[in-house]
Amino acid sequence: MELEEVKKQSLELIETSKAAYLTTIDPDGFPITRAMFNLRNKEQFPEFFEFFQKQENKFAIYIGTNTSSSKVAHIKNNPKISVYYCDPDDFKGVMFGGSVEIVEDQDFKNIIWLDWWTRYYVKGPKDPDYTLLVLNPKYARFYFKLNLVNFEL
Amino acid sequence: MELEEVKKQSLELIETSKAAYLTTIDPDGFPITRAMFNLRNKEQFPEFFEFFQKQENKFAIYIGTNTSSSKVAHIKNNPKISVYYCDPDDFKGVMFGGSVEIVEDQDFKNIIWLDWWTRYYVKGPKDPDYTLLVLNPKYARFYFKLNLVNFEL
Repeated sequence: MELEEVKKQSLELIETSKAAYLTTIDPDGFPITRAMFNLRNKEQFPEFFEFFQKQENKFAIYIGTNTSSSKVAHIKNNPKISVYYCDPDDFKGVMFGGSVEIVEDQDFKNIIWLDWWTRYYVKGPKDPDYTLLVLNPKYARFYFKLNLVNFEL
Repeated sequence: MELEEVKKQSLELIETSKAAYLTTIDPDGFPITRAMFNLRNKEQFPEFFEFFQKQENKFAIYIGTNTSSSKVAHIKNNPKISVYYCDPDDFKGVMFGGSVEIVEDQDFKNIIWLDWWTRYYVKGPKDPDYTLLVLNPKYARFYFKLNLVNFEL
């Protein structure tokens, strides 16, 4: 498979995977994985689609979470993460790796916000418990059946 | 939710999740995640169901892979892994963590074997490229909607 085709299919997975599987590393060095909302999923979060389309980095990954969560504690201690997207019925998946950052730009946080999220962050997008993470991945691993393609970003 | 109910639902996830999401840690300390066959899935691998039911540790996780794969190199360097199972439609997931081991018992490898796996390991269950991993997890994290329950094993 050509690299351009791999990148195209990777973007399709980002835009369709039912969840984003985020792995952080805990203070004892163990990986901790959990499913997160996939904000890039076109069907689940159509409100953000146009915004993400306009971003310079097509592979930038945004994840909202509670500041008080263990994952935020983990990344403050160790920013190395992976985010995995997949279509398990088709044995297709793509993983992105790199060091995650915390988005400090409030204008950006106001955009990546939906009113019903007050169930998670009662005070809205300015809630100190609302943390927005961004990963500008350094590398990716694309899996399809027996094939693995590594690529850098 | 009572702990017994959490454990029951965790076992149900192990037996129904479409894949087992395995995370290893690479030599640079980055987590690497990929979907693996979920050998505990009752529908996908009915041949193994009775065998697993008889195991003393109901939460023991077995994963077959190529000895030559990067994940085997990772775990020889660092055995800390996580394995995640989920039902993304129901926002339910369970993660198991601990240090993985390589199964050396050939009788055991002969049991955890299916003839069509020769497409991965041409020489059969004794193929030196067939590695069977086992995780006897130390702890688990059960996620259901907004709830998280940690438990030890």
